[in-house]
Amino acid sequence: MEGIFITFEGPDGSGKTTQIKLLEKYFKKKGYDILVTREPGGTDISEQIRNIILDKKNIEMHKITEALLYAASRAQHVAQIIKPALLEGKVIICDRFVDSSLVYQGIGRELGIEFIKRINDMATEGTEPDITFLMKISPQFGLKRKFSTDECNRLDMEKIEFHNRVYEGYLRLEDLYPERIIGIDAVKSIEEIHGDITRIIDEKIKL
Amino acid sequence: MEGIFITFEGPDGSGKTTQIKLLEKYFKKKGYDILVTREPGGTDISEQIRNIILDKKNIEMHKITEALLYAASRAQHVAQIIKPALLEGKVIICDRFVDSSLVYQGIGRELGIEFIKRINDMATEGTEPDITFLMKISPQFGLKRKFSTDECNRLDMEKIEFHNRVYEGYLRLEDLYPERIIGIDAVKSIEEIHGDITRIIDEKIKL
Repeated sequence: MEGIFITFEGPDGSGKTTQIKLLEKYFKKKGYDILVTREPGGTDISEQIRNIILDKKNIEMHKITEALLYAASRAQHVAQIIKPALLEGKVIICDRFVDSSLVYQGIGRELGIEFIKRINDMATEGTEPDITFLMKISPQFGLKRKFSTDECNRLDMEKIEFHNRVYEGYLRLEDLYPERIIGIDAVKSIEEIHGDITRIIDEKIKL
Repeated sequence: MEGIFITFEGPDGSGKTTQIKLLEKYFKKKGYDILVTREPGGTDISEQIRNIILDKKNIEMHKITEALLYAASRAQHVAQIIKPALLEGKVIICDRFVDSSLVYQGIGRELGIEFIKRINDMATEGTEPDITFLMKISPQFGLKRKFSTDECNRLDMEKIEFHNRVYEGYLRLEDLYPERIIGIDAVKSIEEIHGDITRIIDEKIKL
């Protein structure tokens, strides 16, 4: 028996965390065995790697180092958490996955989508999401939301043009993988968005 | 003006550190601007990555995670230290480089030399040593030396067959890259080995 692998993507402050919590409850109510996890992180080793990536002191970090660290964190996450859970038939919801690297490192840092895809193919050994929800909201709006509630980290301090390039990258991925990536209007109310997401889940997965 | 990039490879306890110190003095006496560094490490960020790799608590580390962490550490080291020093015309001596990953991860952990080479090509962006000294000594002999002087780390605890496979990997690389990799009989006395190394340096580099 194989599980279901769902990922959430989008700018910071786009409401991923809130929607993931609501979707988790939705699956639980239906009796599913559900696992919620996040990237970069999700395992003890991945969290150690995450701390290096996000540490504001590490301003000298080269963009290739950053891309390889994200891939290392992901390799551990996939091998230790995601693959075993999928084999046990669980529903997995993951906050960010390979698409985040494709847009943040590939497009935002201009390393190229192909370069990042190659590194990540090695890291995931072919594990791909069944559905990806892309929370569509302008980066300006998302960052404003985030700054009022959360402490800023090294990536937030990047210029707004970086976040705009990243967002355009997401829209490109949505065009490239229309079967997998579902765009969600993240400007709507929390309840409306949750309704949109569960409607798609019900259609796609036939719970 | 381009510098000279020298690496030392071989089992732990093969005397790399001692020989690197002697060679550093040798170059200094001749008036060269010399930089000694090591892998995994060599920069503040690389050292943070090194701590994760060598931490004995991280027994669950997947072999692909390990390989990507080594590559991430190396990417930072190359971009921040090695490339700039080469451009300034310095002599760089580095304790371990890509060859270590090829044999420890590629052969020891059975990820394949090709897989590791692909990851590292991304990390180094084509930076290669001019000369590599391979300290040839049986892993049993090297580990015995090391355990009596140094605290053991996670990698030392691997079974001896692992270290034997790694050592055979080194001999294979010596065959593959005879122009670059020079085998050194590391069972000889410290002074004899230093003499062998400086003779080769003088021949190859024409100081």
